Amino acid sequence: MPMFMDVHRGMTGVTAEQLEAAHQADLAIQAEENVHFQRAWADPDSGHVFCLADGPSREAVQRIHERAGHPADEIYEVPLEA
Amino acid sequence: MPMFMDVHRGMTGVTAEQLEAAHQADLAIQAEENVHFQRAWADPDSGHVFCLADGPSREAVQRIHERAGHPADEIYEVPLEA
Repeated sequence: MPMFMDVHRGMTGVTAEQLEAAHQADLAIQAEENVHFQRAWADPDSGHVFCLADGPSREAVQRIHERAGHPADEIYEVPLEA
Repeated sequence: MPMFMDVHRGMTGVTAEQLEAAHQADLAIQAEENVHFQRAWADPDSGHVFCLADGPSREAVQRIHERAGHPADEIYEVPLEA
């Protein structure tokens, strides 16, 4: 399954609880698009959040994020890993 | 140890071999700065590479990337993970 890294901006001040709640909102519905969010990392100072997922397409990843209330600003397919 | 996500741009067309070679160049010297590069993901189409590392500071991560010949364009400290 293709892998994706997505980037959310503007999450300045995000807390651990808010990140976990957002991640859980994705996990709750991800199966409907065959997406699997693996991990998420956040920088409260700059407001960047990075999510690593696998799924059938960039659009499927975005549909889950949109329905969960936090569309990504950028989604990159990352077929290479080291 | 703090965690960091860094972003490299302009790596359009990067191959699996080039990504692995770049990652190995980091690994070869990372101990000198107490940095540990965990994983790297690349999108050859857009030229973005994302690296996840832990280490004492953003500057330490950048010093390894610079000495390995591929300074990061952005480095974010990511204290939150879900």
